[in-house]
Amino acid sequence: MSLYIKYIENLINEFKKLPGVGPKSAKRIVYFLLKRNSRDIERFSQSLLEMSSKIRFCRICHNLSEDDICSICSDPQRDHGSICIVQEISDIAVIESTGEYRGTYHVLGNLLSPIDNIGPDEVHIPGLLERVKNSSIIEVIIALNPTVEGESTSNYIRKLLKPFGIVTTRLASGLPVGGNIEYADEVTMARALLDRKEF
Amino acid sequence: MSLYIKYIENLINEFKKLPGVGPKSAKRIVYFLLKRNSRDIERFSQSLLEMSSKIRFCRICHNLSEDDICSICSDPQRDHGSICIVQEISDIAVIESTGEYRGTYHVLGNLLSPIDNIGPDEVHIPGLLERVKNSSIIEVIIALNPTVEGESTSNYIRKLLKPFGIVTTRLASGLPVGGNIEYADEVTMARALLDRKEF
Repeated sequence: MSLYIKYIENLINEFKKLPGVGPKSAKRIVYFLLKRNSRDIERFSQSLLEMSSKIRFCRICHNLSEDDICSICSDPQRDHGSICIVQEISDIAVIESTGEYRGTYHVLGNLLSPIDNIGPDEVHIPGLLERVKNSSIIEVIIALNPTVEGESTSNYIRKLLKPFGIVTTRLASGLPVGGNIEYADEVTMARALLDRKEF
Repeated sequence: MSLYIKYIENLINEFKKLPGVGPKSAKRIVYFLLKRNSRDIERFSQSLLEMSSKIRFCRICHNLSEDDICSICSDPQRDHGSICIVQEISDIAVIESTGEYRGTYHVLGNLLSPIDNIGPDEVHIPGLLERVKNSSIIEVIIALNPTVEGESTSNYIRKLLKPFGIVTTRLASGLPVGGNIEYADEVTMARALLDRKEF
């Protein structure tokens, strides 16, 4: 005799699919929700649907948007001669929070990964090339994670952009500000040495 | 300029309320969901509503139920002279999995906690007394966690049941099977010594 009624199992399965939620946490969450009143659950369910139905992605840069074109791409105050390439939508908020960048963005959504069948079409590269061809782009900043996939995607994009004669830069690598040399790994330390700047 | 559109913030807030999900994980989950297609999100949302609308609690023992009375309370094969008191619905599955118990259950939902304003009414104790008064209960097994709140709730219930002349037992405490004496804390070790059994 099973005490786990179908509806509970369905919901546990949904939670298990979320990042950072294992089978035990999923069960714990569902039992927690069982104790909440139905108004709370309805609000939760509604929030999910609203997010899914109301939010769209910018036709140009694939950022979140409520309209066809996002608030950054449609802002005449921004520098439309510069594109910053990021992996995730959430990376935009990190860069915006510095206040150091006034250009536009291009969200890849994924990094190239032949093993996972993620090719150029899955990372919005055709759209990037369209933008580069059709507008007067002066600089492309590649702001991808300094990992193996990030590096190979960066290299792929750099090669593609070469014929257009655009300045292609990438984020500096080195010691984190406030970091301790003692705890730096050798690759970071090597990069910090190679990219040393005149003082 | 905020990139976090209202709908996303709403959903992040909903996930933040779940046990084990902090602000960072909630954000990560929502950005993960943003990449899923709308059919997946609708199914998730639907699972929540279904759980909330289809699942009820047993009128007698407060276990999960699709009907007014749960499958255990309505099963004539079970021993209705025995009630096992547990804190959470999920504890029933743990006890059922042993195959050692054939009686009925009573789910408290909470433990007594004057600090959190949780009194006897919040832990379904009036319903327990009704059951004891109106049927021929022979044994009540108190299966609450061996914590401070668990112990004080157990003591409270034991005193309440005393006038009815019912056998009241509680789960044995001691070394976990397969455990190591070296790693046992002193309270568990003391209990294991005090409750030693003839061999």
